[in-house]
Amino acid sequence: MLSIVSTPIGNLEDITLRALRTLKECDFIACEDTRTSGIMLKHYEISKPLLSFHSHSNDFKIAKILSLLKEGKHIALISDAGTP
Amino acid sequence: MLSIVSTPIGNLEDITLRALRTLKECDFIACEDTRTSGIMLKHYEISKPLLSFHSHSNDFKIAKILSLLKEGKHIALISDAGTP
Repeated sequence: MLSIVSTPIGNLEDITLRALRTLKECDFIACEDTRTSGIMLKHYEISKPLLSFHSHSNDFKIAKILSLLKEGKHIALISDAGTP
Repeated sequence: MLSIVSTPIGNLEDITLRALRTLKECDFIACEDTRTSGIMLKHYEISKPLLSFHSHSNDFKIAKILSLLKEGKHIALISDAGTP
């Protein structure tokens, strides 16, 4: 399952209960910049394997994510800020 | 202080941490329908004095709210669903 999750664009309190639950329940979090997202996720005490994924990701990275989804993994897709 | 607070439009998890904190910290919650909002607030275990306030509220009701704001009270304005 792929979940598209919106994250705050300035105030770390601007995140919904559903977004937090999804990030806590998923198996992997796909994000543009793992360092940026890592800092944000640490604030929420969420620790998940991060997958780097952005508009310049190559076919290999896309295939890896599709493979995980086909295995039944739950991936949450976020961007550095706002809605992916 | 007047805070404009967005509430969910269908899924009660679609509310931000900031919205919940504001609703918990304020002195009064001004809402369109006190019964509708009462049910929602109970879900979040928030109990505050509710003020009925909507597009057909008369001058007396508006004056009452302005008076409370001038006294330094913190009022959170919500609508039945979404952003007021």
